Amino acid sequence: MQPQRIAVVGAGAVGSYFGMRLAEAGHDVRFLMRRDYDAVKSGGLHLSSHLGDLSLEAATVERTPEALAAHGPVDWVLVGLKATAIPDIPKLVGPLLSEGTRVLAIMNGLSVDEEIAAELPAGTSLFGGLGFIGVIRGEPGQILHQEFGAINLGHHGDDPHELQRGVDLFAGSKVEIRPEASLLKARWEKLCWNIPFNGLCVIAGGVPVDQVIEDPPLYDAAHELIKEIVAAGNADLEAHGQSARIDGPRIAHLFLTQTLGMGAYRPSTVIDYNNGRPLELDAIFRQPVQRASQLGIGVPMMSMVASLVGKLGERVE
Amino acid sequence: MQPQRIAVVGAGAVGSYFGMRLAEAGHDVRFLMRRDYDAVKSGGLHLSSHLGDLSLEAATVERTPEALAAHGPVDWVLVGLKATAIPDIPKLVGPLLSEGTRVLAIMNGLSVDEEIAAELPAGTSLFGGLGFIGVIRGEPGQILHQEFGAINLGHHGDDPHELQRGVDLFAGSKVEIRPEASLLKARWEKLCWNIPFNGLCVIAGGVPVDQVIEDPPLYDAAHELIKEIVAAGNADLEAHGQSARIDGPRIAHLFLTQTLGMGAYRPSTVIDYNNGRPLELDAIFRQPVQRASQLGIGVPMMSMVASLVGKLGERVE
Repeated sequence: MQPQRIAVVGAGAVGSYFGMRLAEAGHDVRFLMRRDYDAVKSGGLHLSSHLGDLSLEAATVERTPEALAAHGPVDWVLVGLKATAIPDIPKLVGPLLSEGTRVLAIMNGLSVDEEIAAELPAGTSLFGGLGFIGVIRGEPGQILHQEFGAINLGHHGDDPHELQRGVDLFAGSKVEIRPEASLLKARWEKLCWNIPFNGLCVIAGGVPVDQVIEDPPLYDAAHELIKEIVAAGNADLEAHGQSARIDGPRIAHLFLTQTLGMGAYRPSTVIDYNNGRPLELDAIFRQPVQRASQLGIGVPMMSMVASLVGKLGERVE
Repeated sequence: MQPQRIAVVGAGAVGSYFGMRLAEAGHDVRFLMRRDYDAVKSGGLHLSSHLGDLSLEAATVERTPEALAAHGPVDWVLVGLKATAIPDIPKLVGPLLSEGTRVLAIMNGLSVDEEIAAELPAGTSLFGGLGFIGVIRGEPGQILHQEFGAINLGHHGDDPHELQRGVDLFAGSKVEIRPEASLLKARWEKLCWNIPFNGLCVIAGGVPVDQVIEDPPLYDAAHELIKEIVAAGNADLEAHGQSARIDGPRIAHLFLTQTLGMGAYRPSTVIDYNNGRPLELDAIFRQPVQRASQLGIGVPMMSMVASLVGKLGERVE
């Protein structure tokens, strides 16, 4: 693939990481930044990672989408916003769009693709990426990569040709891309990790995953939650007329064993909670519960966890 | 019954309330106090209650058990300590015991009677009281009675003649006594309230009961918990060779409907949690789980709640 021009909007830890890996692979990557703008403008953007450190000494960085747009049109906008920031997409992404610009949203949550699509011009090719990665911000301009680093990539509309364009974008980069024929299935599968681990870790007081996964009753609760989410997800796929199904035992085994190896890793909701920031309640917790309820699937554990996280989230907001 | 001489040890809200009601009924009640000693010594002890306000202007109050013992022997020691203070019983209660002194422990938890009995001279007649009451301390020397006010009373050893002595003690007072032929059954029944409501209210962030009981998924979780506790309790009664059984549907209906009427009431564990004090983890949560496990009764929800409260309790301690 020819070098692509890419704008990263929502350049927190996740957006910065994948943007940097694309820059490393030879693409022209430009970052929209707020908190870290001054540090990156003067000192560059720096990544510490077990897959190889990386420094972009002269990263293109701007404070506003208009200033970023002044660098010229882009082929891709990589969106790393929180789901709570979707209403800001017209303001943040709009100025960067031109004929043929594709949008890749690396975000958690059930219905974020529909919600983002509604904020974009009709016909914009939209991709959803589920980041399986542990990455946090350090000092301004410093990104610390802790775990994993893959993206499960789908296309909103499940267009296989478009999906291949997304896969090609990352060719030659250090990012493992796992193409997903059904974005809806990929989203439910990601929830099979996020709901139990983001959820229980917050409820247990904002603790890292080892406090949950190494505690037998909480491990069992996580497993129970995964079973409910799989049941709801498969009913949702069926209701959407899709033939894809989540393999429940496989996903449970995968996530439970992977999490056992993660040590004192803190899920994003825990980091938000411990820092007094709004939680992604709606995208990660409430919408899946609501969807299960519409489908008539009983999800008492998931409902309970959603309610408890909701109570805690209200205290934060 | 002749006026009895009664020492109240652990004169927090619960101990002070029942001690005051016994004084009101004509008994000679003496209070061991720490935090509120100065206020009560100079200004008396005051109760605000929907069952009638009460002031003991010249309450007998001392700072040490030895000073209280100097007022002469007592017929009863009413213990209102937290379960976490059981190891202090020899020091706090010992000096007050003489031939025939009876001990009534108004405390939550599964095995507190056994644990208290082990700290008392052999042969001491020990009663267990489960307070169904909402009462908190206000300003020093002020007790605020919010809800209910009964004691489910049992005798450690389930001696019916002794039990009657306990019932008689409260005759003529404003305290409703519900005699319990099986103290073990009474303790499990009380756990059917404490585990779901003390537990879920703490987990939801230290909220009052209306936040749990008025939230359908948390209401369902409370109901599920009650079912598990009933199953464990009935197995425990059977293992103890007792014929008494908890009526699960009755207790669930009673507690769920009663709690719906309690409004913004905060269970004791929530008050402890919000004040950064140690939680009664062992007596209310861990011992019931351990007992269920020994009996081979599956209690996944109770185990989960115990683990979550445990994690939160560790942060407090």
